[in-house]
Amino acid sequence: MKLKSKILHIEAGNFVVVINEEDAKEMGICLIDRVEIYSDNCKNKLNAIPNFTKIYLNKGEIGIYEEVRQRLNIQEGDMADVSLSSRPVSLEYIRKKIDGINLGDEEIKAIVRDIVNGNLSSVELAGFVIATYVHEMTSGETISLINAMVETGQSIDFGENVVDKHSIGGIAGNRTTMLLVPLIASANLKIPKTSSRAITSASGTADTMEVLAKVEFDAEKIKEIVEKTNGCMVWGGAINLAPADDKIIKVEYPLSIDPDSQMLASVMAKKKSVNAKYLLVDIPVGRGAKISNTEKGKKLASEFINIGTKLGINTRCLITDGYSPVGNGIGPALEARDVLIALDYENFKNKNENFKIPYDLINKSLDMAANIFEMAYNKKGEYRKTAGEILKTKALKKMREIIEAQEGNPEIKAEDIEIGEKFCDIKAEYKGKVKFISNWKISQIARAAGAPYDKKAGLYLKISAGDFVRSNESLFTLYSSSAHKLQHAIELAERLNPVEIGGAIIEKIE
Amino acid sequence: MKLKSKILHIEAGNFVVVINEEDAKEMGICLIDRVEIYSDNCKNKLNAIPNFTKIYLNKGEIGIYEEVRQRLNIQEGDMADVSLSSRPVSLEYIRKKIDGINLGDEEIKAIVRDIVNGNLSSVELAGFVIATYVHEMTSGETISLINAMVETGQSIDFGENVVDKHSIGGIAGNRTTMLLVPLIASANLKIPKTSSRAITSASGTADTMEVLAKVEFDAEKIKEIVEKTNGCMVWGGAINLAPADDKIIKVEYPLSIDPDSQMLASVMAKKKSVNAKYLLVDIPVGRGAKISNTEKGKKLASEFINIGTKLGINTRCLITDGYSPVGNGIGPALEARDVLIALDYENFKNKNENFKIPYDLINKSLDMAANIFEMAYNKKGEYRKTAGEILKTKALKKMREIIEAQEGNPEIKAEDIEIGEKFCDIKAEYKGKVKFISNWKISQIARAAGAPYDKKAGLYLKISAGDFVRSNESLFTLYSSSAHKLQHAIELAERLNPVEIGGAIIEKIE
Repeated sequence: MKLKSKILHIEAGNFVVVINEEDAKEMGICLIDRVEIYSDNCKNKLNAIPNFTKIYLNKGEIGIYEEVRQRLNIQEGDMADVSLSSRPVSLEYIRKKIDGINLGDEEIKAIVRDIVNGNLSSVELAGFVIATYVHEMTSGETISLINAMVETGQSIDFGENVVDKHSIGGIAGNRTTMLLVPLIASANLKIPKTSSRAITSASGTADTMEVLAKVEFDAEKIKEIVEKTNGCMVWGGAINLAPADDKIIKVEYPLSIDPDSQMLASVMAKKKSVNAKYLLVDIPVGRGAKISNTEKGKKLASEFINIGTKLGINTRCLITDGYSPVGNGIGPALEARDVLIALDYENFKNKNENFKIPYDLINKSLDMAANIFEMAYNKKGEYRKTAGEILKTKALKKMREIIEAQEGNPEIKAEDIEIGEKFCDIKAEYKGKVKFISNWKISQIARAAGAPYDKKAGLYLKISAGDFVRSNESLFTLYSSSAHKLQHAIELAERLNPVEIGGAIIEKIE
Repeated sequence: MKLKSKILHIEAGNFVVVINEEDAKEMGICLIDRVEIYSDNCKNKLNAIPNFTKIYLNKGEIGIYEEVRQRLNIQEGDMADVSLSSRPVSLEYIRKKIDGINLGDEEIKAIVRDIVNGNLSSVELAGFVIATYVHEMTSGETISLINAMVETGQSIDFGENVVDKHSIGGIAGNRTTMLLVPLIASANLKIPKTSSRAITSASGTADTMEVLAKVEFDAEKIKEIVEKTNGCMVWGGAINLAPADDKIIKVEYPLSIDPDSQMLASVMAKKKSVNAKYLLVDIPVGRGAKISNTEKGKKLASEFINIGTKLGINTRCLITDGYSPVGNGIGPALEARDVLIALDYENFKNKNENFKIPYDLINKSLDMAANIFEMAYNKKGEYRKTAGEILKTKALKKMREIIEAQEGNPEIKAEDIEIGEKFCDIKAEYKGKVKFISNWKISQIARAAGAPYDKKAGLYLKISAGDFVRSNESLFTLYSSSAHKLQHAIELAERLNPVEIGGAIIEKIE
């Protein structure tokens, strides 16, 4: 059927067209079908997902979303030849997985190809993700998924002996990557680190690094940076490693599900795409962390190691204390300042309380570095000490090299980093020992203050779990660029009460 | 944040708006969130699902889909005040069901309310449907779902002793409703029948009835028709019985899943909405039917009866032979002609072969009528005979009354019904006994000829399963209004080979 194009200029996230219901009926096109579109003008052909309209289009018209317009190079008023085409065969495999039947390598590859090529609607993709949540994938299926993700994305070959790390996340602060990369790179190991931006937290590593340097580069430029400095800290979203993953995450997020197998595949595909040989995984466990107890943490660890072995990636996992935030600053600028203080901590001893040394961040990072050295050198040794030496002597210099390679100001000092000029202290209501600091609540409050969009916003913790505080003593300072948002954050802090003092009560059951 | 409206004039199926990614980031709005929109001009407020764009909108603009435009009465260029609002609480319940936890009455009601109010995105709705497929709902959950569907839709009170019937479907032809309604209505029982249109089949009851009369009426007019004639045959889609169901079906269809519990809820909610007291369910089983064997049919039957009992609907199920099409004509006009012939079959004895009496349709309908009488009169009796008498003496007259009440031509005769002027006979390749006629293949071929959109298109079966055919004898005649579509149907018929002759081979295993 010949239909007249009407350009929508809206992104659909897939190849989508809109067809008048009458035309669809006449062509016998249903919700499940795909249409083939051919345009005389550009001699291109494309399969697309049809949406239906009663009012937007007249009979004889077709609405063209942005992705289709670009691919077909079609223009307003162009005639398009539209016909029923076959539905993607991967829909059958998705249906199979919904029914609890394990999928073969070729079946999973077909699904991933259809995801990447925009051939699946969001409902169909949701079907796949929920199916793999309810019927957990086998490790064979996960390997297939990883290989398919790697094949359908970009790879960057950084050569031999590439080191990588990953954290399961959920801990406020916790910018270990920004200490580890200069530490490891100083030891002549390659650590090309791609990180994410915050989705629900106050800042991702990419957001924090962006306070100091650029983080969006193409693959070629990233390779150049790593060749020059042995390390990088860039935003993974700017390059096309495992693009299927981005589409999967968009479906997982609204349903608040994150199947272990999908998470494993997502992490490992990206590591495989950069040819990582050694991988250290940080699995924080505890009340308020993503993984609630050590047992679950160990199960996840064994899955990481199992998959790592099959992919030829030497993988080690650390179960870490996920009970409280790591570092003092929460929010991009405050965290970046913590990192610079940590890299130069000898100089910050005995400065004022706004420049408190984040010993917990330093210790965690040194422990992690020691583990990476042990893996990479494949023998036991005094690597904690080595790491400590590197931190004292080389890491800051290496950090400045990387900042410069990433087009930031290598001379930047902790004191130079601008923090929101509106601020307010949140104080202890009564005296006692700090029992618990909620990662989730802390993140929500920092977000209310404007983080991560307002880089200067967030909060600065004055206390740690275990500290004894007096009534009216400052627990943390809120910072924001906006008085309005500061007020909002203050109210949220008062409502959520993120720092628990004294009480032994964990939960009230009614 | 104040944003300037840009009207899209496209239906989204829900309350959806488009926001520039930068604005979304600044407001801290994620995929999972909802936004509250307030427009000064109209003093209206609405919660909507945000979509995000990089290119379609400038910062400071908001794209308004049709449903939001109508509800807010907002116009191009109007300023809208947009803020983050809370996500629907029903998302938590959906998540719970995905995790296999049974839901309470209030939780299911919250989900259904959010479905009907357009508060759930298609991914979220898919989450609910897949969850109820993987973790089958308990009968308590199904009852809650039915009650919620009834409450959120329109009800029509047809008074006491309302009779209804339902068929699981999947059988080509099978227009028992169009014989049953006049039969039952002639016996002074009320049978207000709402039917569907074809989705994947060649014709639905509503499509076939539409050949003889109008089928789209509002609730008031339907009540009037039933008060006048005791019966009706109308399209359920024109009234708002259980509107949640339509949205659920749109998600089930692309994934080819139809959880038993959802199907039960869908059927029973509509029966409850018309205050049905007696319900007869036709469950065709057999190779090629939706239900593959009697055991599965019986399980479904016991679920229907269980739910019926709990809802106060006296329910009886018939396991019927689903092996082959019922009736000779397949396609709206051809089926309508079968119905008129059946209602006047004494007159059609010894007419030409184009007016073959559909005895299988007549017998099935009389058996069903007898079962309805037995339920409604609550005693055993010679009701098969009663039904046969009514068919001979009163049913055609009643059918004409109903056609007239539904604004059709009550004088219409079988011979008057126009059938596609392009036709072609499909003949037997070799002689032998007809083993099997595939419902699915027959429907596909009739659709290829243009049914149900082309009312005159379809096919007319010359033979039944069990008949002995000679080589080159006509098996069925294809009809279409379009020579092109006729050709398409001929090719499909040759490829699919819907009538199996002779061979005892059911399946080849390699």
